[in-house]
Amino acid sequence: MTIKAFNASDIENMPQRVRANFINSLSGFKSGNLIGTTDKHGIDNLAVVSSVFHVGAHPPLLGMIMRPHSVPRDTLQNIKDSGEYTINHICTDLVEKAHHTSARFDSDVSEFEPLGLSPQMSEQVKAPYVLEAQIKLGMQVQDIQVLAINQTELVIGQVVEVILNETWVSQDGYVDIESAQSVAVSGLDSYHTTSRLGRFSYAKPNENLHHLDIKTGKARENS
Amino acid sequence: MTIKAFNASDIENMPQRVRANFINSLSGFKSGNLIGTTDKHGIDNLAVVSSVFHVGAHPPLLGMIMRPHSVPRDTLQNIKDSGEYTINHICTDLVEKAHHTSARFDSDVSEFEPLGLSPQMSEQVKAPYVLEAQIKLGMQVQDIQVLAINQTELVIGQVVEVILNETWVSQDGYVDIESAQSVAVSGLDSYHTTSRLGRFSYAKPNENLHHLDIKTGKARENS
Repeated sequence: MTIKAFNASDIENMPQRVRANFINSLSGFKSGNLIGTTDKHGIDNLAVVSSVFHVGAHPPLLGMIMRPHSVPRDTLQNIKDSGEYTINHICTDLVEKAHHTSARFDSDVSEFEPLGLSPQMSEQVKAPYVLEAQIKLGMQVQDIQVLAINQTELVIGQVVEVILNETWVSQDGYVDIESAQSVAVSGLDSYHTTSRLGRFSYAKPNENLHHLDIKTGKARENS
Repeated sequence: MTIKAFNASDIENMPQRVRANFINSLSGFKSGNLIGTTDKHGIDNLAVVSSVFHVGAHPPLLGMIMRPHSVPRDTLQNIKDSGEYTINHICTDLVEKAHHTSARFDSDVSEFEPLGLSPQMSEQVKAPYVLEAQIKLGMQVQDIQVLAINQTELVIGQVVEVILNETWVSQDGYVDIESAQSVAVSGLDSYHTTSRLGRFSYAKPNENLHHLDIKTGKARENS
């Protein structure tokens, strides 16, 4: 076991691709989602994104960082044009197809077709869900801003529809995304299943934590 | 298996705590980190945060969403005052202690002491690392902005130091955070270990994906 410290200039001096892999690994595990959109001509688009994150619950908001010159550029343009998109959790069975959406398919090709996935329409959003996904969110754009520091774009959307198996929703609102087989992502290309260590009670300074029952969100007996 | 669709008013009408659990689960898996800071009087602070995300690799930037009126308010104030903080991956052994930092300890109490954790200083940043953590990042604030849509604050920092076991760094820069036992978080209180499905090659439209070797980042034979 050799502990190493990298300083700012060590990082700056890495080859570009090495630095990209290195820094993309360091935030910790990430969400893995497929973003569904439709362009002005009615052609659907699907892009793998690992940058979706929680912004707030009331109103229900999720953020997403987009690089204007990277592959999901069609996605960003479609979101700007239509104002709507879907977020579809990547589950274990969909990992390879999801990763394949990062290929540079032509703009006039819907990624659904070559990958053998099915668009699913809804009355709530003008963008396709992935039929095969297990947890699907319909989103309306609330704000898009360019981050001055590196010209990436922060897209903030409001959750206007949630489609999932009701049995995964606990009594206290927690959604068991592990039972839904949603995957976690690390770095640019690594996908992981998960195994729950536990749900823990709201913490107080001088009390031990309790394990919570997954389904009720209440402290377990003898925990 | 009962598929249910929740629309915007179903979500709006949930009790506040249920909606918080529900929406916090829906982004997918999140990073689990302990944020180390020091206040003006030299008292250390440690707070569990699941909102750290990747912003860019060059310069190396990570973002973090902070709620001004939630428990890590000391953390946000300290970051504003000192301009520096540390991000420490929560590993399996640290889950209970990490979750416990969310208790409302008094501002004049360093969370390190009651939780039995050790601050580790560095010449690169004026904030304490968690000695017991396996992956540690030293951060300098680059930008803090209030998101107009819900008054949360987006903190963007630059990675100026990375301390980890060199054997986890692959030849192509990927960091094997699973071998480091970094955990994934779902919702507000659930912690998970991971199991890798695979690293996949850069995708091209008409080519099958290859499995990559974890340590080299190169396509495996017969993959």
